[in-house]
Amino acid sequence: MKFCIIGLGIFGKKLAEKLFDHGAEVLAVDQDEHEISLIQDKVTQAVCTEIVDIASLEAIGIEEIDIVVIAIGENIAQSILIAAIIKKRFQHAKVIARAASQTQKEILELLKVDQVVLPEAETASELADVLSSPFVNLARLSNTYSIGLISIPDDFIGKKIQDLGLYKKYKVNCIAVQRDKEYISINSNYVILDYDELVVAGKDEDIIMLQNSTK
Amino acid sequence: MKFCIIGLGIFGKKLAEKLFDHGAEVLAVDQDEHEISLIQDKVTQAVCTEIVDIASLEAIGIEEIDIVVIAIGENIAQSILIAAIIKKRFQHAKVIARAASQTQKEILELLKVDQVVLPEAETASELADVLSSPFVNLARLSNTYSIGLISIPDDFIGKKIQDLGLYKKYKVNCIAVQRDKEYISINSNYVILDYDELVVAGKDEDIIMLQNSTK
Repeated sequence: MKFCIIGLGIFGKKLAEKLFDHGAEVLAVDQDEHEISLIQDKVTQAVCTEIVDIASLEAIGIEEIDIVVIAIGENIAQSILIAAIIKKRFQHAKVIARAASQTQKEILELLKVDQVVLPEAETASELADVLSSPFVNLARLSNTYSIGLISIPDDFIGKKIQDLGLYKKYKVNCIAVQRDKEYISINSNYVILDYDELVVAGKDEDIIMLQNSTK
Repeated sequence: MKFCIIGLGIFGKKLAEKLFDHGAEVLAVDQDEHEISLIQDKVTQAVCTEIVDIASLEAIGIEEIDIVVIAIGENIAQSILIAAIIKKRFQHAKVIARAASQTQKEILELLKVDQVVLPEAETASELADVLSSPFVNLARLSNTYSIGLISIPDDFIGKKIQDLGLYKKYKVNCIAVQRDKEYISINSNYVILDYDELVVAGKDEDIIMLQNSTK
């Protein structure tokens, strides 16, 4: 999978570096030489140029790219221009654009950009989920279903998962234990140790019931 | 749990509204009357004031608050002032602050703020995880452990989860099925239906092995 990240502010830089760390081929583009010099050893290729038209997109090799991320920060006009050209002329590529406001998000969606990201809103939304959860919420899969972390009461220690009957009683699945910040998959034969924390999956209300029963 | 959100830009507004939706008590504070008028029906209480000293924090009732989120956008000096006063004088409250740059994040961490959020970097990091994953990655719990979504091959249909031996073969747990965007917890007696998608938990490499085996 070949990525092109246009604009190397906090968002674009982090995205480019992390994709490259994960083994992806990453072309990073910015008009600021200093940003290019900072990132050039951390991506596949870094190009200092301004994208202003079809020719400049062709010059960076857009034909070869699978996913273009328009990560430009403040210049929404340039984001719109690039999104419009790619969606019209280089339709093979998936386009993801970063918005800095709700209005920008709506404009980019009108251009049929495949995915619009509004970092401030997304991070706020996730933080609200975590802060308002009555259990340690490791991940929220939907409004009602989560992956939670439960402290183990003394009377669970030394017992097998299957003997606790947690699915039967609470419709909650035990999927792993957390030990030294690592997750270790377990099955129903696993015998609980005294320093384990239990990673469970289920409806929020069911995880809360389980947690309350173990207090 | 009582929250106070100071600063109602995109981040603060979304956070305040979503916390209130989740049933939390939320005091929203901003110096802009227009922002206050927009949010007043969506939170417990909305106050138009500028926080400049201990007295203004006392005036909004900081003594009653469990978690203060300093969501101020551009005025880092004000964020620092508020964080410093609360950490020194109102130590009962947990302080979370939004940063707009890596430098701001480091300054706020020096002040011993409990949690610093840099939305651009966090969203970029999560997007990189999702885009570079070789399976549909619903949530990443660590660098190596994820919750994934797997399409079900024809020869799984009509079989019980326990008869597939997925944990034995791949150390992967099936925790739910996704149906109409909802997640339904399943146990090992569940019989797979032809329109199910399987939610699995395990190490990334194990989920990839399972996915490849079903192609």
